[in-house]
Amino acid sequence: MEVCEGIKYVFQTKKDVFVLSSSGSGAMETAVVNMFSPGDEVIAINGGKFGDRWGKICRAFGVKTHEIILEWGTDFSAEALAGELRRHPEAKAVLATLAETSTGTVYDIQGFGEAVSETGAVLVVDAISGIGAAPCPMDEWHVDVFLSASQKSLMTPPGLAYISLSPKAWRLAEKSTLPKFYFDVMAAKKSLGKGTTPWTPAITLIIQQREALRVIREIGLKSLLRHHEILGRAVRTGIQTIGLELLSKRPGNVLTAVKVPEGIDGNTLLQKIQDKYKVHIAGAQEPHRGEFIRIAHLGYMGGFDMITALSALEMALSELGYSFPLGGAVRAAEEIIKENWS
Amino acid sequence: MEVCEGIKYVFQTKKDVFVLSSSGSGAMETAVVNMFSPGDEVIAINGGKFGDRWGKICRAFGVKTHEIILEWGTDFSAEALAGELRRHPEAKAVLATLAETSTGTVYDIQGFGEAVSETGAVLVVDAISGIGAAPCPMDEWHVDVFLSASQKSLMTPPGLAYISLSPKAWRLAEKSTLPKFYFDVMAAKKSLGKGTTPWTPAITLIIQQREALRVIREIGLKSLLRHHEILGRAVRTGIQTIGLELLSKRPGNVLTAVKVPEGIDGNTLLQKIQDKYKVHIAGAQEPHRGEFIRIAHLGYMGGFDMITALSALEMALSELGYSFPLGGAVRAAEEIIKENWS
Repeated sequence: MEVCEGIKYVFQTKKDVFVLSSSGSGAMETAVVNMFSPGDEVIAINGGKFGDRWGKICRAFGVKTHEIILEWGTDFSAEALAGELRRHPEAKAVLATLAETSTGTVYDIQGFGEAVSETGAVLVVDAISGIGAAPCPMDEWHVDVFLSASQKSLMTPPGLAYISLSPKAWRLAEKSTLPKFYFDVMAAKKSLGKGTTPWTPAITLIIQQREALRVIREIGLKSLLRHHEILGRAVRTGIQTIGLELLSKRPGNVLTAVKVPEGIDGNTLLQKIQDKYKVHIAGAQEPHRGEFIRIAHLGYMGGFDMITALSALEMALSELGYSFPLGGAVRAAEEIIKENWS
Repeated sequence: MEVCEGIKYVFQTKKDVFVLSSSGSGAMETAVVNMFSPGDEVIAINGGKFGDRWGKICRAFGVKTHEIILEWGTDFSAEALAGELRRHPEAKAVLATLAETSTGTVYDIQGFGEAVSETGAVLVVDAISGIGAAPCPMDEWHVDVFLSASQKSLMTPPGLAYISLSPKAWRLAEKSTLPKFYFDVMAAKKSLGKGTTPWTPAITLIIQQREALRVIREIGLKSLLRHHEILGRAVRTGIQTIGLELLSKRPGNVLTAVKVPEGIDGNTLLQKIQDKYKVHIAGAQEPHRGEFIRIAHLGYMGGFDMITALSALEMALSELGYSFPLGGAVRAAEEIIKENWS
């Protein structure tokens, strides 16, 4: 299937890619039920709402989870991970997130890959929101199970997910005894040999994804990553220019989480942006609702979407009494965009 | 969600309907993982490729399956099912299929419902291809778990599935200990209360399904069922008029499976219909490939689609040396259609 070849290009892998008719959470479940057996131990990095999901899935399937719970927005180093791997030598896997959508953090997957590849464990990476917006070459960075979904930078409506396994991961899959049917990668592998999927595929989404992947190939992955880098940098520079603070200590170019300044109510701010200016900026998810806002860079977004978001934010902040030079964030973003656009 | 209300109309139920972003097989897995616990006993009716899937899913999840393996195309009576229920008083469920797509058989779900409702077991019905083409009012016929998918008579591309549970089924769901995450109905129930789904939904398909359901409501379920009845009857009468035999002893109006007459090679017949006349008629699935052909009536199909299928079949049969009055099947179908069309 052409879609599989396109995803291999984006994943930067030579390994087979399987198409699942499900949302990204289905691909996360696919990783868990195919890698592990009841009672297996794993290390899960939980730095937000999506990292938290790894632990939820593992516990649902009886996998013993050593969860590293991070304060939202903080980083986790490869060295710290190496320490966790030494502390839990029985761990079969490290479950990580490329870009934690709830905080805007992009983790050091390259470093994680180096640390994990020296052990018997596999590195499983949820790249649902990250792929295409944050670099993560699967093969080069020693990622063993890489998964993503159609609806973020892959610019297709939700309903498809993708997963690829390294030989080390396949060896675990062969021994895994967790029950599975719909998400069984062995069935997917057998069907892929015949150019199909084990169950009726969401064919209209596959056709849409094929077209989006043609566009991505035309742009080129390197240019796509650079495009997101410019958008992310423009927004980060813009918001810092007007005295606002980033939530993440390791912000990526997928989205930017910005702390709501003291004295301003986060919910009122978002409501004004949405209702008066008709611009959609996401809020923080539970349990941090109202504390920060999230400006997206990923998917079908251009420089003027960033200008629009910053402009709406400026006007709403100004109306709510936040003191700063109006237009400052936009001007700072313009400097970045005009120097780098091509 | 408007889609849930529309599906309730088609399912003829007052119970909640949950939308899954998966194909129909995902809804079948949803039924199994939410109803049962390891070691539970069930009765599965296997009359073809799709009935066979029930046993495969149950065994994958460690559910003890008393499988009733029927010769393809044969019927299974409610009385026989009552006997099986007496033989297996521990059975937690009967897993059945409304329309077995591999053979064209539509089972006596009304009778099954009566038999099962007198016991402690639940009746689980896969109505993936059947819904909208074969009558099956969920509540009136005592179906406890009813499931379907978007791509058959619901006239929407594949990628969505639907499931509804009776109070008896919810009681089992509360006790079920099989591991689940993506297909957890408790999570779906919690999200439905907030008008959403637990995971990112395949939103473009939901919008398409909403439109298709508006069309179905406009036509009316009764008229839709009658429409399929006319198509099915026209095809059955047509093919019998030219001496061909039905595969199914209890044929429904979802599709008609027709035995390939002796002396004719089934694969050559289908190839001629496909390559020369550019008409798609399905073949038999393994292990019966070449033995019969399957003419679909379901979905976005009208009377002239049936005329076209019969006409292509006639011409191909004639070329391959089958002896019959050319035009006979079409004429017989025309008689049915002209008397009944409205």
